[in-house]
Amino acid sequence: MATAPEIERLAKLLARLPGLGPRSAQRATLAMLKRREGLMQPLAEAIAACAEAVRPCSVCGNLDAVDPCAVCADPGRDHGLLGVVAEVEDLWAIERAGIFKGTYHVLGGTLRALEGVGPEEVGIAGLLRRVEASGVREVILALAATVDGQTTAHYLAQRLQPLGCAVSRLAQGVPIGGELVYLDEGTLDAALRSRQPYL
Amino acid sequence: MATAPEIERLAKLLARLPGLGPRSAQRATLAMLKRREGLMQPLAEAIAACAEAVRPCSVCGNLDAVDPCAVCADPGRDHGLLGVVAEVEDLWAIERAGIFKGTYHVLGGTLRALEGVGPEEVGIAGLLRRVEASGVREVILALAATVDGQTTAHYLAQRLQPLGCAVSRLAQGVPIGGELVYLDEGTLDAALRSRQPYL
Repeated sequence: MATAPEIERLAKLLARLPGLGPRSAQRATLAMLKRREGLMQPLAEAIAACAEAVRPCSVCGNLDAVDPCAVCADPGRDHGLLGVVAEVEDLWAIERAGIFKGTYHVLGGTLRALEGVGPEEVGIAGLLRRVEASGVREVILALAATVDGQTTAHYLAQRLQPLGCAVSRLAQGVPIGGELVYLDEGTLDAALRSRQPYL
Repeated sequence: MATAPEIERLAKLLARLPGLGPRSAQRATLAMLKRREGLMQPLAEAIAACAEAVRPCSVCGNLDAVDPCAVCADPGRDHGLLGVVAEVEDLWAIERAGIFKGTYHVLGGTLRALEGVGPEEVGIAGLLRRVEASGVREVILALAATVDGQTTAHYLAQRLQPLGCAVSRLAQGVPIGGELVYLDEGTLDAALRSRQPYL
């Protein structure tokens, strides 16, 4: 069938969003067309407004409508404590937990040697400059417990050490609610090696 | 964290699309923000263009940028053969298969007695008028093999019979590629009762 080109183009663009395949993009297109006033028009406006207003924070790389972002501009935050994350979504995940009162640095990715992503592609020079320039007391490497994440953490730790700030990383171990039988060997190994005194 | 209101509004609207929850809507928002030129701007434009151009076909209810839609306007189609479907997505599914050369009528839903959706809410009057007015030879009830779909088919068959056109429905049975052990009793029952002579 020759569907309207407008429909095909919209479904094709939607299918490029994470979590949507060609079929679900078509369903989403139809859902919009059925709710023009309530969903479709507002969505077009919201995307345009968001694209217009939201920019990366020039300090930390977070995305916000103000620059510096709300986190960097918050005087109640500990600006001597810097959480280094790979992506903005990691920053948001930590903020959802609501337990970190420091500030952030978003690298924009991790080192991926196999794909040729080196320190220049990731914002490592910017991080080092920032740590040197502002009196950062401690850098927490909040990177994924994956090969790429840990490679990046290792590289960063070596580059940060000479700058005189403390460097730490997230604890690795049994996730809360985790049952031992379902954990992989790597996690059990890390949890055993990093065992902590019981009170 | 106080995320920018523009980001929150966009994520909230995206979460109302089928197939996207709050988390995946946030991921989709971030994916857009990372690809402003390549994805975000085109998407806002595509939604607006689609909302502007696409309308329901005044003949069959299909969605298209032309009215009558491409299917209804196609002189190569058999306009005496009418496939009745519940939703536009059903029409598209049949068109994807590319084997039906008749035209369609989109009801816009099925009868759902428990939710108070009766013949007035679904476009049944329009279907009956259309069959009466244009010389439709056969109506194929291409409705889901669910309780609601079959209730609707039953009701339609009774209303269509007096109009003098043939009324048929999709065959029910073993889906292609279906293994018997994984089929439910209802399907096996239907397949047995509708068994066909082997050549």
